[in-house]
Parts: sequence; structure tokens; C-alpha cells
Amino acid sequence: MSFFGRELRIATFGESHGRAIGVVIDGVPAGLELGEEDIRRELDRRMFCNIPVLNPRCEPEEFEILSGVKNGKTQGTPIAVVIWNRRVISSYYDELWKRPRPGHADLAYYLKYGDNYDHRGGGRASGRTTAALVVAGAVAKKLLAILGVEVVGHIVELGGVQISKEYSVDDIKAAWSKPMPVVDDQALKAMLDEIVKAVREGDSIGGAAEVWAVNVPPGLGEPVFDKIKADLAKAAMSIPSAVAFEMGAGVRLARMRGSEANDPIVLKDGRVGLATNKAGGVLGGITVGEPVWFRVYFKPTPSVRKPQRTVDLSRMEPYTLEFKGRYDVTTVPKALVALEAMTALVLADHALRAGLIRRDRPAG
Amino acid sequence: MSFFGRELRIATFGESHGRAIGVVIDGVPAGLELGEEDIRRELDRRMFCNIPVLNPRCEPEEFEILSGVKNGKTQGTPIAVVIWNRRVISSYYDELWKRPRPGHADLAYYLKYGDNYDHRGGGRASGRTTAALVVAGAVAKKLLAILGVEVVGHIVELGGVQISKEYSVDDIKAAWSKPMPVVDDQALKAMLDEIVKAVREGDSIGGAAEVWAVNVPPGLGEPVFDKIKADLAKAAMSIPSAVAFEMGAGVRLARMRGSEANDPIVLKDGRVGLATNKAGGVLGGITVGEPVWFRVYFKPTPSVRKPQRTVDLSRMEPYTLEFKGRYDVTTVPKALVALEAMTALVLADHALRAGLIRRDRPAG
Amino acid sequence: MSFFGRELRIATFGESHGRAIGVVIDGVPAGLELGEEDIRRELDRRMFCNIPVLNPRCEPEEFEILSGVKNGKTQGTPIAVVIWNRRVISSYYDELWKRPRPGHADLAYYLKYGDNYDHRGGGRASGRTTAALVVAGAVAKKLLAILGVEVVGHIVELGGVQISKEYSVDDIKAAWSKPMPVVDDQALKAMLDEIVKAVREGDSIGGAAEVWAVNVPPGLGEPVFDKIKADLAKAAMSIPSAVAFEMGAGVRLARMRGSEANDPIVLKDGRVGLATNKAGGVLGGITVGEPVWFRVYFKPTPSVRKPQRTVDLSRMEPYTLEFKGRYDVTTVPKALVALEAMTALVLADHALRAGLIRRDRPAG
Amino acid sequence: MSFFGRELRIATFGESHGRAIGVVIDGVPAGLELGEEDIRRELDRRMFCNIPVLNPRCEPEEFEILSGVKNGKTQGTPIAVVIWNRRVISSYYDELWKRPRPGHADLAYYLKYGDNYDHRGGGRASGRTTAALVVAGAVAKKLLAILGVEVVGHIVELGGVQISKEYSVDDIKAAWSKPMPVVDDQALKAMLDEIVKAVREGDSIGGAAEVWAVNVPPGLGEPVFDKIKADLAKAAMSIPSAVAFEMGAGVRLARMRGSEANDPIVLKDGRVGLATNKAGGVLGGITVGEPVWFRVYFKPTPSVRKPQRTVDLSRMEPYTLEFKGRYDVTTVPKALVALEAMTALVLADHALRAGLIRRDRPAG
Repeated sequence: MSFFGRELRIATFGESHGRAIGVVIDGVPAGLELGEEDIRRELDRRMFCNIPVLNPRCEPEEFEILSGVKNGKTQGTPIAVVIWNRRVISSYYDELWKRPRPGHADLAYYLKYGDNYDHRGGGRASGRTTAALVVAGAVAKKLLAILGVEVVGHIVELGGVQISKEYSVDDIKAAWSKPMPVVDDQALKAMLDEIVKAVREGDSIGGAAEVWAVNVPPGLGEPVFDKIKADLAKAAMSIPSAVAFEMGAGVRLARMRGSEANDPIVLKDGRVGLATNKAGGVLGGITVGEPVWFRVYFKPTPSVRKPQRTVDLSRMEPYTLEFKGRYDVTTVPKALVALEAMTALVLADHALRAGLIRRDRPAG
Repeated sequence: MSFFGRELRIATFGESHGRAIGVVIDGVPAGLELGEEDIRRELDRRMFCNIPVLNPRCEPEEFEILSGVKNGKTQGTPIAVVIWNRRVISSYYDELWKRPRPGHADLAYYLKYGDNYDHRGGGRASGRTTAALVVAGAVAKKLLAILGVEVVGHIVELGGVQISKEYSVDDIKAAWSKPMPVVDDQALKAMLDEIVKAVREGDSIGGAAEVWAVNVPPGLGEPVFDKIKADLAKAAMSIPSAVAFEMGAGVRLARMRGSEANDPIVLKDGRVGLATNKAGGVLGGITVGEPVWFRVYFKPTPSVRKPQRTVDLSRMEPYTLEFKGRYDVTTVPKALVALEAMTALVLADHALRAGLIRRDRPAG
Repeated sequence: MSFFGRELRIATFGESHGRAIGVVIDGVPAGLELGEEDIRRELDRRMFCNIPVLNPRCEPEEFEILSGVKNGKTQGTPIAVVIWNRRVISSYYDELWKRPRPGHADLAYYLKYGDNYDHRGGGRASGRTTAALVVAGAVAKKLLAILGVEVVGHIVELGGVQISKEYSVDDIKAAWSKPMPVVDDQALKAMLDEIVKAVREGDSIGGAAEVWAVNVPPGLGEPVFDKIKADLAKAAMSIPSAVAFEMGAGVRLARMRGSEANDPIVLKDGRVGLATNKAGGVLGGITVGEPVWFRVYFKPTPSVRKPQRTVDLSRMEPYTLEFKGRYDVTTVPKALVALEAMTALVLADHALRAGLIRRDRPAG
Repeated sequence: MSFFGRELRIATFGESHGRAIGVVIDGVPAGLELGEEDIRRELDRRMFCNIPVLNPRCEPEEFEILSGVKNGKTQGTPIAVVIWNRRVISSYYDELWKRPRPGHADLAYYLKYGDNYDHRGGGRASGRTTAALVVAGAVAKKLLAILGVEVVGHIVELGGVQISKEYSVDDIKAAWSKPMPVVDDQALKAMLDEIVKAVREGDSIGGAAEVWAVNVPPGLGEPVFDKIKADLAKAAMSIPSAVAFEMGAGVRLARMRGSEANDPIVLKDGRVGLATNKAGGVLGGITVGEPVWFRVYFKPTPSVRKPQRTVDLSRMEPYTLEFKGRYDVTTVPKALVALEAMTALVLADHALRAGLIRRDRPAG
């Protein structure tokens, strides 16, 4: 279903080419400052207007807050936000009806929903629907700000190009002034080249994003099924095209010896902490006061112009698909923003569940 | 918390050196054949008696079914199973009290629970607690058998050694007759060597396990947060030491072009299917009638005999830890069995939620 | 929070005088016929235009289906419906700001939300918000129709007047052609008189509604916390002004001897059934194939024109409130329609959970 | 299912004549003092040894805490408690197999579970299973004590006899020194007479219990489905034999005029409060700092010695049942203790959810 979270809970809705997409956000305490600009700011971060191939028209989203906010503050009641879909030309999708695009949700939806799925623009499975997550993430980020927690991510791999530079969280934040948030300028250039090349070839590319949450208080998460690493994994793998999740150093840890993988425990400014943070800020699934970080890998956009083998489901015979519509050569940049949003939702939910943010009285 | 699942729901409990561990399993329809031997069989699969270093005493678990079963069939009511902990010698752990072992949950538990956590044997965070998952998985596997679904896994990487052989699901099943389920004999030998070497050096090793579910009907899973890939990720990352999750070809997909990553859609024996299955059996997070498969990476056991830097929390001063007790040189084999269990739980839950198994009347 | 249900799940939102109210309905299988007229029909049932004092302007609701429906059929994805609030005059409420109306949610909201609640028209606590429940109930009723289940209710008590006539479910259905659904014409007349009298006196009245669900299959509900009687109680008591819930004969059962309270078990047309149905169609909280029925009591609308004692919260001094705006002299008729909706939601949820309606493939 | 609660969550299990019943309690913060005596005290409150007909053998329960407690304090991990069933004589139940007792869950269980239900002593539907709730309630009461909240109840009606005396919460507490907690001595005597009379006639009686929670902080509960009144209703109606629920003055409110039903809002010792408390301490479903109180009605025990009409399900022919085993002439006293437990669970859950009790660090 389209419901997520326990004490900070969201319900999302909407198909890519339908009337609207949107989200209901519940569990937010009253008195949190929240304006349209907070939502606008996060929605704008997924536009990437400086890379025209990713967003040729570069138009801002048109959205409305329908409930839950009064005089620029939350009421403590559900916050419903609707994002109107533009009147788009869906005719490119006529050829695709009952000719499922390989790699897309089409086939699964056909098997589950029969003739009742909206395939236009990917329908409910479209990357577009993550705009609703970003709206919810905007609220979660405001909530986390009460605790001083900040969430920010960057692209660490695209089209096979990996960053190869040390970086701090400040470097990540600074990278958001570039066309894409990549801390390594040389890698950024190579990634942009890969984008151009893939477009030219009518193909698409995947990659990986990394998210950091800093100033996370210790004690968030619980044994054994509400581990932060488990909830982040579910949150991340809910994003379209996500194919792998690594907590902290992830796969690399699995290839180390224990003596090498363990982060030494040390005294830091009078408190106990980790000398290194290969674990990603959690031990036993619980935060320890170190930054929480993880990586998520995204497959290339399934839409490509290259001919692809599929089946015409009306005739039950093979069909060769040549998509002619617009497609995103890569979903990684937008997916990264959704990933930040989901991270904020998970951490804010845990903060509420642990009682760090109270809800029997106004916030702040 | 220690609760998992929606319509097939479990609650687990217990500390490693406490009185007992156990699980309550709810949502199982009445009339399912279930005997102690079904549970015994699964618990035995995590013993690995042929690798003495993994289980020197090789004693079977002592467990009791307290409720929910009558005359060898489920009643439709909660099935409670308690696994009694042996009277173990916990004295090795005296030195570890308030001297958190790096890489273990100790530090997180101390920060969250103060002096109230049971650190002996890892307490609630111990790999031992996964025996309760395996019990629940035994029930879930019986439920899935109604639909013909089978779940089985194998070790694909250990101590840096990777398998390098094509294999079928039958090969995986057959591999369970070996000391460890590894389809590639040469890799198996090298892995066993790594185990011996790590023990000798007082160190530990990590690795990766892969699980396959076959005969999975199409239509399981739902947009956007109840995707099979998301629920499997949460389930997998709940297991101690799990550090990464890959759905299908995972990270490798992220490095391919779209035209290469997409599984062509083809006709197979009159039905629509995938020519390849890099996606892991799901599209848009929903099953399509192909086997579901994924990989999980586990870090090396944090327990090592090599000296490690930590902090004496009573004195708040640095401390060098040299663990002298027994430890598992690797958790991967046992974790694999827990992973199978969690996979069975996720799929059976989704089968119940989708209505493939009815609960208003007895099963079968 | 504003989330309800397990496998048929809703999220509602909206304040009475805000931009809109609405609901997201998730878990509905694909292929269910659903048009605006299905929603319109249910919304119209709460208008009671023939009793002008209950609805002087008698204008139909203005609503939009934003997602989840395609060509008159459900898609299997979330169905979002927004009901636009009319531009109402809220000036009557200026005097009420920080002068909480006795019996209303005002005081509770002030204590919990501070200055951040929207008090106009009762805000989030308004009876108006139940329109969103009625929309969700319309969908749930369509789902139940697949199983032949029908849900219908009537008013059994108002302003102290009780019905005193035997009746069948057909009588209840027929009563919906009257100004208010009351099976006993004499009682109806007396109730209407009570309404007029209360209006004249600037006061308000309460009463009770009874809901019947027929053709409910046996086996719905589960021990021990998912009992039908418990879920209906929660659903009913969620409705504004609900103050008591009786399953079947309720309080009367508590005053009988066991030999009198028990419904004899008998053979009926070859199947086992109950000779009487004082239990309300459930035993042990589980349906037995008999109609499910229960009663809910609603207090009088807290809004009255008579002077009432309250506190001016800005000055923290006593204040005498004389409300001058429009108010509903009784909420029972509208609450009844909400009660039907909640009943349908509970039963449809249980039908999905028990697997009577499948969701891995289109309905019907 | 047998799972209840959000942030304070329980899973119960067990059949009346099975091996054991029990409960897993999760969500309790670490550091809460909890000993066997805390559980013993609550279990003893449901013994009523001074009324031999209610408990002829008067033996204390035999229970074990299996996990979650260390040195008399909670660990923050699941607390599992098992209550061993005595070796009871089940032979009285042989005649009842497939001859469902009217008013009991037998018929429902047969229809849902087929031959797989344990009918002995009422199996999973037995009042005995509420002992597990009382254990969980003992923990919840300890949690609430952190906030100064106390929960206590009394019997207000039994066998048609109603109390007719004003009383304070102190009177209710004092009444627990009597054979049954009834504030009105004359009524108590008449109730005890009704018990004797019903036993003599081989019949059973029902009644009503009232629970009070004092020192409840304002701001617990939320619109629109997590109202305290709704959650208490579900909790109460989950108890076997519960047939009606009244919040505050309940049905009586429905028969008043609004001007009479509303509790005036007044200044009390500098804070805002209610002059009367007919509402039961909640407005809009949210606590306002006044005591929370409600009533629950219980039907008479379905077990009676008088002959009753049922059906022999093996032969599908009418059968006259004459039960010869021991039965509880009334369940109200034990149900009251379960009701207190459920009340404590609901309030403690809401206190955790609202953040009044923190869980990222030890309690106290």
C-alpha cells in the first residue's frame, strides 16, 4: 500500500498522468513553522534545471496545502498536500498499452491489475510520484531541525563513474550549488559526459546516491525489527529503480576481517564515540551519536529508445518496442532527493517514537 | 520493537544468556499440519555440525510449542514457541561489562538502556536470537508450501572468496548436503580454509548469502511502500550483522546501460515471462511469476581475539579489550538460515494479504 | 491520527472551514466498478433536505476523485477524494476564539495544540469531517457488494423518543424514503417534534442509531483483539459525539440470566445458525453467518444558543458564551450515515484480511 | 489477532487447557523497576478468594518472566511472561466436543477453524486468557506510575443490582478490601445474594464495571481515529463477554439536552478544567486533565447448567446440552481486573506515543 511510518505517518496517492499526486502527513505536532516555501524549496531541489536533458521545460510544481496548517504553523492535524499534474501529452503512450516496457512495472501491474492500470508515464510506478515523498520529507526535515538533525545526500556514482575524493558533510552541502550534487568535480564532468553519451545512444544509465544525517542523537532505533538500518533499507528500496542498499561501508565491510571492520570505541570531547564510522552510525541497529550514512544503488531508467523485446498482450505475440516519448536518461538525481526525504521521515518517526519530540503540546 | 509482519505477524523475545528465547506467531490459518519435527528440521539446518569450529558441542535446541497447535495441526490461534537457553558459563563476559565490544551493539545499548542491558553473549542483539526467527520461518515455509512456493538459500561469498560457477535452484538444494551450502566445491574449500585461517589469527570473516524463492505467484507486493523488494530489504537488514542488500543483480544493474539491464519480456509456455531475471523476480516491487532472488552481505563477527580499542565506561578511560570467550568466526551460515526464514515470512505475509490463502476457514 | 484499517486502509484530512476535507483509500483491489455517482449517492444520504432545520441550504457536496480510478473502475492504487469546503462565513466564530465551547473539542485542542488549532466550525473535530468517512464507506460498500453484504442503519432514539415497533431489515431500508430513517412513524413524528422544540429553545438533542449488516459470511474477526465487536466499537466511538456502543442487545444482555441471554443454536435450512440474535451476529467476536447489528448513542450537539459557562483563555477569567451561529440541533442523522460507512470499512477490511476478496488479481 | 497497541505493544497466546498462556510486552523503556511481585499483585487481584463460588481452590498462578528484566529492572527489550496452566481435568468437555455451547465462541470457532479448535475450558476464547492481559496491565500500571497516573475500577452492577451511592476514587480503592470491589455495601450484599441464587438455579449473571484513571495529563489521544474513547472502546470490547461500552455518562448523555450534557468549563486552582465530568475526561477524544472514566457491560457467563438447545455438529441434528463441569457464575469481577489492565495499556501507549515517556534513554 501507499502508507508509511508509525508515529510520523504518510499516505501518498496519484498516477503520473492522472489529475494529481499528493500526500497526507500525520503525526506532526502542532506549532511547527511550515510554509509553502519549505515545500517549494525541497521540490525545487529535484528540478536540476541546469542539466536541460533532465528537465527540458524546467517548470516549478504547482501544489496546494489543503489542511493541517494555520498561519504558517502546523495544527497537529493531517497535512494534505496536492500536486497538480500538468496537462501532458499522453499520446506517446498509446503504442505502449498492453505492450509492457521491459524493466518497468507495466508487466507486474498488468498481471495484478488486469486492464485497470494507468500505464501513461508509468502511472502509479512513475518516478514522478516521488514528488509526494519530497513534500513529506520537507515536513520531516523541519521536524528534525528541532533536534538539530540535518539530512543531505549526494551522487557517488553515475553511468559507471565513481567519485574518488575524500569529502566532508560540508562538501556535500556545497555540492548542491553545482548542476548535480557531486563532490568530485572531475567525476561530475565525467558523469555529465555519460549522460550526454547515453542520450545520444538512446540509452539510459544508473548509479548510486549516498545520504548523511548529522547530529543524530543516540538511542534511536530498537531491536530487533525496528532497527534504523532496516527501516532505512525499506524506505530506500521503496523508491522506484532502487536495487541495492548499503549501510555504512556495506559490501566493503563484508570483505574485511573483524579486526578491520570494527570501529574502535574512543573518548571524544568527553563523550564515548567511534574513532571511525564504517558502521554508518548504528550499532545493533541503534544510533550512537555518530552521523548516519548509507548508499543506495539505482538501476538505469528502463525507458530507452533502443528497440526492446516485449509481448503484445492483446495478441499474445512477440513485439518489438521502440519508445519515442521523452524519458529520463537517469533517475538518480531525483531519486537522491526522494532518498533524503525518506531518510528524514524514518529518523523523525523514530524521534517521535522515542519521545524526543512531544506531541501532547505544541512544538518549540 | 520485536514485532514483524502484517497478516502473518510475529513477536520475538529473549536474551542470549537469559532464561529463554522465543516467538509468538499469529495469523496462521487453522488446519495447517505442523509438528515439532517441522520446527526441529529448520533449527537443525542452522547447526552446521560438520564444521566443528562453528558449533563445537553440536547439541540440538530444546524447545516447546506452548499454544496454537492441536493434534498436529494449527488451531488458527497464536503459536507460541519457547527455546530454552542452556545454562551457559557467562563468566567470560564479566570483563566486558561496561567495556563495550567494538562492532557489537554494546555501546548502542549502553547509550539507550544505561546499566539495564544484558551484555552476556550479546544479550538481545545476539545472533542466537535468530533461532526464534527460524522457528517462525518453519511455520511460514509450511504455509507457502500450500501455494507450492519453496525458499532456499546458499552462501555466495565468505572471507573474500566468491563462488564462480553457474547454478540452478536444484544445485542450491543439493548443496545443503555439504558442510556449508556452497554450490561451488572449489570455493567451498577455499572458504573453509579462510575459516580456519581466521580462527588461527583470532579474527573473524564476513560474506554474503543469496536466497531464492521459486513458484512465487505473480501479483504479490504493492505500490509504493509494500514492495516485495522493500519488505525483503527490511527483513534482511533486521538480521544481526547484515550490512547490505541487493535485489536481483543489484549493484551490477546500477552499472549497466538500460538496454542491458532490462529483462526482455517474452512468451514462455503460453504465459508472459522474462527472458532473463536480473530484476530478481519483481517489477515495480511486484512479483511477476519468476523466481524471487536477492543477496545480503554480512560483516565479520565483531568478536575477535585480537586486542581492540574501547572505553571503560565506569572510569571513562580508554581500555584495550582482549576477548577470551568462544565466538563465531563467521555468522554467515546461521544468518543465511535466518534469511530464508525472513524471506518465507515476508512472502507468506504477502500471500495472506493478497488473499491467496484464506483465513475464514481451515486451510487445505 | 487520522489513519484507520489494516488491509482496507484510509487516511482522512481536513478542517471544517479550511480549504478542503478528503480521504485516501488504499487496499481496494483493481477492477471494482466505482463512479462519482457511487460516492454522490452516499454523500446525498447525509443531506436530509426534507428536514430544513438540519440542512437549510441543501446544496450537494462538491468533490473530485484525484486518483486510483480509470474508466469507471478502480486501479488497485490509492483512491484520493477531495471534498471542497464552501466559502463559508466564519465570522460567528470570532467570539469563540480562545473561549472554548463546553462539550466541544475546543478545550482539548487548546491544551494539546496551543494557538494552532482551527476552531472555526469545529475545525478538525467537526461533524463535517465525517463526509470523508462517508466517501470511504461508499467504496467499502461496493467492495462488500461482491460478497453480497449489505449495510444499512436507522435512528432508534432521538431526543428521548424511542421507537417501539418490531422491524425487519427491509423496513429499515424502506425507512430511508422518509425525512429521517425511522421505522416507527409515530416515533418519527415525535422525534421531528423534539427537533422543532429543541431549536425553539436554543438547545440540542441526542439519540441513538442502529446499524445492520446482512449476508455477512461466517468466520470474520479473530481472537483476541481483532474481534468484530471490538473493531466496530473503535470505529463507532471514533465518530464525533459518540458516547456509547452496544453490540447486539448490549446492556439488556448484561441484565439477563445466562439461560435467557444465550441464543439457542439450531438447524436452519440445513446449516447451523442461531434461533435468536441477541448477540448481534458474533460469538467470541467472530461472525457466525447471522446479521451483524449494534447500536451507538450520540450526545446532543454541544453547540446551543443557551448561555454557557466557559473561560476566556487569554484573560484566564470566566466567560459566558452565547453562540449565535448556525448549529445542528442534532448530529444523529449524519452520524448514522458515518456509522454505516465505518461499519462497511470494518467488515470489508476483515473480508480482505480473511482472504474472501483477493488482491493479487482484478476483482469480479 | 492477538496483538495490541502501537508503542506499548503486546502479543498474547495460549488456550485455557493447553500448556500455558502468556504475553510478550514490548516498547517498555529500560530502567523501570519490575519484579515478580508487581505481576503477582495484579494476578492476585483477580482471585476473589473470599467468594469461594468464584474461585473454589484459590490457588495462586504459577508464572515465569522469561526475558526483558535484569536485576529487577526492565531492559527495554520484550518482556515475555508465561503462565503455566494447571493440569486440569478436561473430561467434562468431552460431551461438548462439536456440540457448541450457546453464547460461547464454540460455534464461531467451529465455523472458522473446523475441527482444529481447542474447546476445552473455552480454549482461546476462555476468560482465563485475560490473565495474560493482567500481566501486561501490571507493567503498564508501573509505566503510568512514572506520570502519577493511577487506574482502578469497581463493580457498579451485577445480576441486575445497581449501586446507588455517591463515591470518590478513594472509595473505589477502599472497596478492594471487600470480597468484591463494590462501593455500596447494601448493593454488595444484594449482589452476593444474586450470585448464590444464580448458582443454586444453575444459571449465571452479568453486570457492569467502571474504571477510573486519575492524574491523566491533558493532550493524550488524537483526532480522528486515535481518540482515547475509541481506543478504550476497542480495548474493552476485546474482553470476553463485553457487550457494551459507555464513555463517561454514556447513554444518559444521549438522553439529555445539550445545555445539560455539556460540562461547564471553569477555572480550578489557576488551571482550566471542567465543573462536572459527564464526558469521562475527554473532549474530541483527547484528555483534558480530568479523570478518565467509563463503563463496560458484560453478559452473563454463557455456561449454565440449565438445559440448552444446540446442534450436534457431527450428526447435524438438534441436541440438548446439560453442562456438568465447573463454571463461573459471573465473569464480571475478573473482567473488571482485565479492564483495568487494558485501560492502563491504552493510556500508557498514548503516553509513549505523545512522548511523555522517553525511550531513547532509561526511565526514571
